[in-house]
Amino acid sequence: MSPSSLNQQLAFLREIDRLKNVIRQSPLLDRSRKENSAEHSWHLAMYALLLHEYAVGPINPERVIQMLLIHDIVEVDVGDTPIHQVASGASQAELEAKAAVRLFGMVPGEQGSDLLALWREFELAESNDAKFAKALDRVQPLLVNVSTGGGTWTENGVTLEQVLQRYGPVIERGSPTLWAACEALVREHFAAGVGKREIAPDS
Amino acid sequence: MSPSSLNQQLAFLREIDRLKNVIRQSPLLDRSRKENSAEHSWHLAMYALLLHEYAVGPINPERVIQMLLIHDIVEVDVGDTPIHQVASGASQAELEAKAAVRLFGMVPGEQGSDLLALWREFELAESNDAKFAKALDRVQPLLVNVSTGGGTWTENGVTLEQVLQRYGPVIERGSPTLWAACEALVREHFAAGVGKREIAPDS
Repeated sequence: MSPSSLNQQLAFLREIDRLKNVIRQSPLLDRSRKENSAEHSWHLAMYALLLHEYAVGPINPERVIQMLLIHDIVEVDVGDTPIHQVASGASQAELEAKAAVRLFGMVPGEQGSDLLALWREFELAESNDAKFAKALDRVQPLLVNVSTGGGTWTENGVTLEQVLQRYGPVIERGSPTLWAACEALVREHFAAGVGKREIAPDS
Repeated sequence: MSPSSLNQQLAFLREIDRLKNVIRQSPLLDRSRKENSAEHSWHLAMYALLLHEYAVGPINPERVIQMLLIHDIVEVDVGDTPIHQVASGASQAELEAKAAVRLFGMVPGEQGSDLLALWREFELAESNDAKFAKALDRVQPLLVNVSTGGGTWTENGVTLEQVLQRYGPVIERGSPTLWAACEALVREHFAAGVGKREIAPDS
């Protein structure tokens, strides 16, 4: 490629540095702070690297990893949308689609259009790769909540039924095996009493 | 795999959450804080995804991405070693090798030994994939320093000659094209006067 192509690629790589400042609702496992979308994307890529054998259909793990690396980049423009926030879904989707065109449009030639197509495939959640990537994007925060005494569920007063409904279909569609493991952990968590362990015995 | 394999994989994925708390010397581009090793790993994987065409020899971009995703995981046990710190190289390498055995040993079966082998390949820096991965691991902080008025170079009083010596051979070995672009930026940066733009005109 030409020097100007390299310059455009480097400009894109500088632009997405801002993803490190997009703060999600989920805490780190040690509860020291909230997670940002860049480190979340790294963690999800590691989930794909480790857990791809549990995908429901034939998948290409390398494509899933790439999908997860780029899936949140639109948040550089539009921020994170928490799963437990009632949002106007359509308009948020429109804003994200516009952000994808702007951001991946910074990447020259076919590489930029390939990245945009990969992001759209993730959003559509119809291919095996996208279904599995979407499943992992739900598995990770679910495990964080289970491991941190409730996390965003406790904060938002989310019930067992809401968790099963908001996480179950997406995870099961990509990986029944992972959903079986997650559902067991969720039921165990709620059976132990959400948030109750935070309350002093005499209060 | 068996349920116990899945449990071991999930335990590893929980363990590496700690990489989000390993703080590097490099700042974010907006200088709001220092970068952590998890988000750095995400950014490097994006560098590989965008820039693999500039590798010196035939490489497998997917393997390079995987290498970069795992290259800093040993820091969960041993922390980050800044490039401008004079360290006892041998003992640090020994500690990292031990950390790699412990951490990738948490991953069951062949998957664990494959990850350990991939990490060792990166450290050896002899294969084309590893040489390119090592090059990117130098390119990213170099660009951060150039973009933030000197960054760790200014902080550590690093000279032009030291930059050329500490970054040049590693980057050039993996990608002469990227080194040519980086060297031009570095020379331009030092010609403009490191740190001088931070000094008020009348001071």
